[in-house]
Amino acid sequence: MKWEEIAKELTQPTDSKIVLLVMDGLGGLPVNGQTELEAAHKPNLDETARRGICGLTDPVFPGITPGSGPAHLALFGYDPLYYQLGRGILEAMGTGVEVGRDDVVARGNFATIRDGVVVDRRAGRISTEENQRLCHLLNQNLKEIESIKITLYPGKEHRFVLKLSGSGLSDALTDADPQKEGKPAVPANPLTSEADFTARVVNKFLEELRLLLKDEPKANYALLRGFSKFPSHLPPMSALYKIKPASIANYPMYRGLTRLLGMEVLDVGPATEEIFLVLEKNYEYYNFFYLHYKKTDSTGEDGRYEDKVKAIEEIDKFIPRLWALNPDVLVITSDHSTPSVLKSHSWHPNPFVLVSKYAPADEVSCFTEKECARGWLGRFPSLQAMPLMLAHALKLKKFGA
Amino acid sequence: MKWEEIAKELTQPTDSKIVLLVMDGLGGLPVNGQTELEAAHKPNLDETARRGICGLTDPVFPGITPGSGPAHLALFGYDPLYYQLGRGILEAMGTGVEVGRDDVVARGNFATIRDGVVVDRRAGRISTEENQRLCHLLNQNLKEIESIKITLYPGKEHRFVLKLSGSGLSDALTDADPQKEGKPAVPANPLTSEADFTARVVNKFLEELRLLLKDEPKANYALLRGFSKFPSHLPPMSALYKIKPASIANYPMYRGLTRLLGMEVLDVGPATEEIFLVLEKNYEYYNFFYLHYKKTDSTGEDGRYEDKVKAIEEIDKFIPRLWALNPDVLVITSDHSTPSVLKSHSWHPNPFVLVSKYAPADEVSCFTEKECARGWLGRFPSLQAMPLMLAHALKLKKFGA
Repeated sequence: MKWEEIAKELTQPTDSKIVLLVMDGLGGLPVNGQTELEAAHKPNLDETARRGICGLTDPVFPGITPGSGPAHLALFGYDPLYYQLGRGILEAMGTGVEVGRDDVVARGNFATIRDGVVVDRRAGRISTEENQRLCHLLNQNLKEIESIKITLYPGKEHRFVLKLSGSGLSDALTDADPQKEGKPAVPANPLTSEADFTARVVNKFLEELRLLLKDEPKANYALLRGFSKFPSHLPPMSALYKIKPASIANYPMYRGLTRLLGMEVLDVGPATEEIFLVLEKNYEYYNFFYLHYKKTDSTGEDGRYEDKVKAIEEIDKFIPRLWALNPDVLVITSDHSTPSVLKSHSWHPNPFVLVSKYAPADEVSCFTEKECARGWLGRFPSLQAMPLMLAHALKLKKFGA
Repeated sequence: MKWEEIAKELTQPTDSKIVLLVMDGLGGLPVNGQTELEAAHKPNLDETARRGICGLTDPVFPGITPGSGPAHLALFGYDPLYYQLGRGILEAMGTGVEVGRDDVVARGNFATIRDGVVVDRRAGRISTEENQRLCHLLNQNLKEIESIKITLYPGKEHRFVLKLSGSGLSDALTDADPQKEGKPAVPANPLTSEADFTARVVNKFLEELRLLLKDEPKANYALLRGFSKFPSHLPPMSALYKIKPASIANYPMYRGLTRLLGMEVLDVGPATEEIFLVLEKNYEYYNFFYLHYKKTDSTGEDGRYEDKVKAIEEIDKFIPRLWALNPDVLVITSDHSTPSVLKSHSWHPNPFVLVSKYAPADEVSCFTEKECARGWLGRFPSLQAMPLMLAHALKLKKFGA
């Protein structure tokens, strides 16, 4: 019996409220003996640790460095090893593309071909502006193929998202990408007979694109990968947990992912204070709030240790506004670690603190990796965060008699 | 490979002895800053913690509040998510009904019907004495239907257990219960063709019961739910672990459950000392002893914090008698927590201590939730308790070469 089945059976609607603040990429590694969390002056995060019960979470399992998608899915109680999202859908979310239940999306690269052979898979990494111009040109001249609406969304440099909208589409297609330079371009091939129609549309799209771009010096073709549909097997959080969830995130990827999970995605600007303003304004209308803070991850990804320390100090000032709302359950944690010294996501477990009147405080008084390791929650899979939050909000009935 | 398969392969019979004392519902939450365990004067439990190695267990998984059935199954090494026991069988165990391998049992409610419509699903909660009178009446007048023996066992107020004995019975039946008042009574319907016969017997039983009770003012009908058979897929502990297990429990539910697992269920009175007397008297005849102490749970369920503290102090006096037997492995733990402030089972993990000459003592010197959180066993699923006990009793061979 899986957690989802248990959740469906045991969750009960209540008025109790849960606030989950995700400080993206929070966990770090020492520079001059201190991690970013250890170096930061963060009295309010420390006070939260003092009031609550702490631990360390593993997003997928120990040693595995997760992408943002799987790391967040786990935090929301969706097994990331079971719910794998297609590359196309992740790229679409990251680019801010809204994907309907019948759409098919794919990651696109502008590329260079000579005599049918792919000579540069990234079209010399054309500029983002150049990319925007090309997408605009194609959107103007290539609106529909066999009643399927075609839309291109420019990303950074040579990357774009292709969206096909209409009925009868399937994502069971091979990549239209030879994967290596020096090889001939390949069409998308259907993997099932239901995908015959979609393959025909995609390949016609590529033919017409080639004609439209034939005079471009670099970006005279495109490669398409990771065809995917909306993951309709993802049960919405409201159905699983009988909660009314709201998402407060500014970045497209997190907005898109939480929309896939059926959360109400609230508008929020890029300023840190906005997270808290939007929470306060909407506090009475929902009973589960996901708050996303990106700066701890982006500074870590850039290897800017000092800036990551500052990012922690910046959000720390607003933590008392979470206390002031007095939610039944307050959790502050991360989706994954992003140590500045690695300039990337990492496998290190995440500091986790849960505050609830049914969670007697442990002895942790400092919100750091090291101190959380001594917390009473111990080390646990991120997938158990949701059961713990629901339990402490008294939203879970007894299992068995 | 599941634990059971590993157990069957790796366990070996030895003379070493294991004593497992389950203090039901032991874990609690603070009142005036102290949990029941923290408030209790319990020098012997503390000394046990000092001698042993401690930890905290999660019965099902973090956040899940278990019933007594799943919580105990986990402690005995049976995955509670896999081995789910039917409602009827649990009710039968709780009522002290012995269930044979071919019997079918169901939970019954006396109910009130008017013109075929269920107007009170609990027959106005008739008294237990009234219930006993009705069950006696029915047992006298309705002994057999189509060679199937019919027996009713009165429970509290309107509740009873129906047992069908004979051959060819199946438990694949829908509830004979409209679930809501104001709806017509419904028959039990077979879910498979093998259950046709049983459904016919059950529905004839209900017809005859209606005739026999037609002049009763309140309890003039009955509803039947949770038809279930003996869970024959449960392997006996002796086969899994090559041990000779004995159960020392006074409450019907725990006696019934351990009988299902093939333990020898010894007679024991309700006095706390009896647990230890029966253990001492039978110590030479078995090599695994399950001791059940109910008071810590029943006082917690009632919200009687002080009485729960006293219940802990009461059993503490007898702990030296466990030491005196010098078992190879002594474990003291709980099946689940029952904090007085919640007046119910809860999801909080259970204090656990294991004493063995192969378990060097950790630094825990006080048997409390908080101190056990610092023990070397860490936080682990209850399902791992049995492997740990068997290992420390040298009953497990090497896995692999």
